[in-house]
Amino acid sequence: MKNYRMDLAYDGTRYQGWQRLKPQDATIQGKLEDALTRILEQPVEISGSGRTDGGVHAQNQVANFHVETQMTPQQMLSQLRHYLPSDIGVLDLQEAPPRFHARLSAVEKTYVYRVWNSPVPNVFQRKYTHQLWADLDVEAMRAAAQNLCGTHDFRSFCANRKMKKSTVRTIHSLDVVEDGNEIRFVVRGDGFLHHMVRILVGTLLEVGLGKRTADSMATLLNVKKRELAGETAPACGLILQEVVYP
Amino acid sequence: MKNYRMDLAYDGTRYQGWQRLKPQDATIQGKLEDALTRILEQPVEISGSGRTDGGVHAQNQVANFHVETQMTPQQMLSQLRHYLPSDIGVLDLQEAPPRFHARLSAVEKTYVYRVWNSPVPNVFQRKYTHQLWADLDVEAMRAAAQNLCGTHDFRSFCANRKMKKSTVRTIHSLDVVEDGNEIRFVVRGDGFLHHMVRILVGTLLEVGLGKRTADSMATLLNVKKRELAGETAPACGLILQEVVYP
Repeated sequence: MKNYRMDLAYDGTRYQGWQRLKPQDATIQGKLEDALTRILEQPVEISGSGRTDGGVHAQNQVANFHVETQMTPQQMLSQLRHYLPSDIGVLDLQEAPPRFHARLSAVEKTYVYRVWNSPVPNVFQRKYTHQLWADLDVEAMRAAAQNLCGTHDFRSFCANRKMKKSTVRTIHSLDVVEDGNEIRFVVRGDGFLHHMVRILVGTLLEVGLGKRTADSMATLLNVKKRELAGETAPACGLILQEVVYP
Repeated sequence: MKNYRMDLAYDGTRYQGWQRLKPQDATIQGKLEDALTRILEQPVEISGSGRTDGGVHAQNQVANFHVETQMTPQQMLSQLRHYLPSDIGVLDLQEAPPRFHARLSAVEKTYVYRVWNSPVPNVFQRKYTHQLWADLDVEAMRAAAQNLCGTHDFRSFCANRKMKKSTVRTIHSLDVVEDGNEIRFVVRGDGFLHHMVRILVGTLLEVGLGKRTADSMATLLNVKKRELAGETAPACGLILQEVVYP
C-alpha cells in the first residue's frame, strides 16, 4: 500500500463540515472518499489534518490515504478534479512517506477569521466573511490577543463541555490585521479545540466592542468555564489557511 | 418629484439579468423595484445605466429613480439594505440633479472579464471567473486588443443580428492584464452592444489559443458578420466595474 497526500481548498458553505457522518450527509470527507472509491475501484478512507465545522472553509487543508494502485498521482489528480464538485478543489496530490499522517504529523495550523466591518455590504465576499458594522477598538483586541498567546488550558474556549482529554494548547501567534474595511484575525497554534478559534474571535470582538477588557483574558483562561467566554463567531468567516509539517 | 441616484454591487449568479421581465422572474431591477415600492409605499420604476445579462456581476452599477417622499436618502438606504437579499448591495444612495439619467447621462463604462488560467481550480472565485486552463499567448491577445480599440462598427460583435440602430461604438481602451494565474480583460468604452464584451473576449481568447491572428481583427470588423467572430465567453467571468458621468 502506498501513502498519498492531498492538498485541498474548499468552500464549506453547503457542507455539514469535514467529517463523514451518515452516508446521506454532505461532507467534504464524504465527497472525497466517494470520488476516490469510484476512481480506484476500492474502498478508500482518508484522514484530514483536522475536522472543519459546517460552513467553515479551507484555503489549504491536508489529507492522506493508503491505497494499492497502478495509477500515477497525476492521473488520480486529473480524475479527482473531474469528479469533484466545483466547491472542492484539489491543489496537489503526491506520494508521501509511509509514516506521514495528515493529523498526527501536523505541527502547526493557521486559521484566518475575516470580519467585514463596514455599513456597505460586500456582496462578493458575503459567504467568506462575517459582516459586522461596529466601532471596534482594534488596539484593545490586539492587547487581548497577546494575552491569549502561549501555552494555556483553553477549556473556556472549548465547545465540548465534557471534553475528557487535555484542553491545553499552544497559540504561537494571534495577529489582528486591518486591511481597509476588513479585519483579519490570524491565529497559529499547535492544535485547536472544538469551536476554539470561533470562540476566541467572538471573545475578541466583545473586547473590541468594549464589553470586556484586554486584561480580563487571564481570568477567563483561569476560570475554565465556556459560559464566561464570548459568543461563537459565525462559521462563514473562518478559513483553514495552512497546515505545517516538519 | 425628486431624483435619486443609487450605486449598486451585485452577484448576478442567481439572476436572469438586470432587466425586469415577467413578475415571477428573478432580476436585479425587479428586486430593487419591489423593495423600493414597499419602502416608499408607491410604485417605483428605476433606470439602470445598462442591462447586464443573466449571470453577469456588477462591482458598481448605477441606477436612478424619481419619487416624492419625506424620507431622507440615508433612511431609504438603511431600509433598502434591510430588505434586499445579500447578493444585491447598495453602495450609496443620494439625491441627484433633476436631469441626471443613469443610462443617458453615462459617458463611459468599464467592464472587467476575469479568466482563471490554471489547472488548479479556484474554489472561492469559481462564480466570478471563467476557469480555463490553456496555453494562451498574451502578447498576441494584447496586439489583437489594440486593433479593436477606437471607433468602429462592432456589428460582428453584436448578438442581436437584427439590430436596426447603429452598431458603431468607441472602445477607449482594452487592456489585457496578467496577475498571477488570472488574466483580466479591462475594456472601457462609450457603450456596448448586446453580448459585445463577451464576444470580444471570446474572440481574443481564440487569438490567444492561436486559432486567429491579431491582424485578422480589422477584417473581422469590416465583414460585419457575427458568425465570423469568436464564441461568446461565459457570463460568470464578466463584471460591470464602473460607470462614468460628466
